[in-house]
Amino acid sequence: MEKVNIAEKFGTFSDPWHPRIVGELNGQHVKAVRVKGEFVWHHHDHEDELFLVVKGKLKMEFRDKTVEVNPGEFIIVPRGVEHKPVADDEAEVILFEPATTLNTGNVENERTKKVLDKI
Amino acid sequence: MEKVNIAEKFGTFSDPWHPRIVGELNGQHVKAVRVKGEFVWHHHDHEDELFLVVKGKLKMEFRDKTVEVNPGEFIIVPRGVEHKPVADDEAEVILFEPATTLNTGNVENERTKKVLDKI
Repeated sequence: MEKVNIAEKFGTFSDPWHPRIVGELNGQHVKAVRVKGEFVWHHHDHEDELFLVVKGKLKMEFRDKTVEVNPGEFIIVPRGVEHKPVADDEAEVILFEPATTLNTGNVENERTKKVLDKI
Repeated sequence: MEKVNIAEKFGTFSDPWHPRIVGELNGQHVKAVRVKGEFVWHHHDHEDELFLVVKGKLKMEFRDKTVEVNPGEFIIVPRGVEHKPVADDEAEVILFEPATTLNTGNVENERTKKVLDKI
């Protein structure tokens, strides 16, 4: 039982859109990811996703609206709902989601990360 | 899809050891709880628990050591492991755990909260 310092984990990598696993419990992963620019529209068939912002501003785009998520705030995107994470400047985000979750959901392209490092 | 502001949620209650549900996903709950003084020794037979500190200092006591968890840090307590959360001064903590998790785990006493409000 070691504690995890979130800022310390973010200090170990700098590439955006490349989530790292920083915790695991009950079949869920806690991931740290840097968000910068636009991701791809996608959804997850079987997984709800939580995005907790620790630094910067995340804009979560949905087909009908955009929600701005600031440090100390989180948003839960239910399974099946199309979304596109965007950050004009870089944002640091913690994800809580099932270990089965693929970053690009139903889409597979050059941004898909199938194997994630544990840091 | 509304975002949740964690500080705002903590602003709606003041009683310690009384978790509120602030999010739900994949059969898991996100809870906000104020920790002050000593809780009871307990464990959870079937649930791992994540404690993320947002304000103050949480001391997580185990039978063989104590881990101090500060804002921006979290600790995962695996199922079966006895623990006792303590905070000399009040701390604000976010929990991430299965919806089935009872706050006092294997122990049932006056501090047990069987039904939690969603706020």
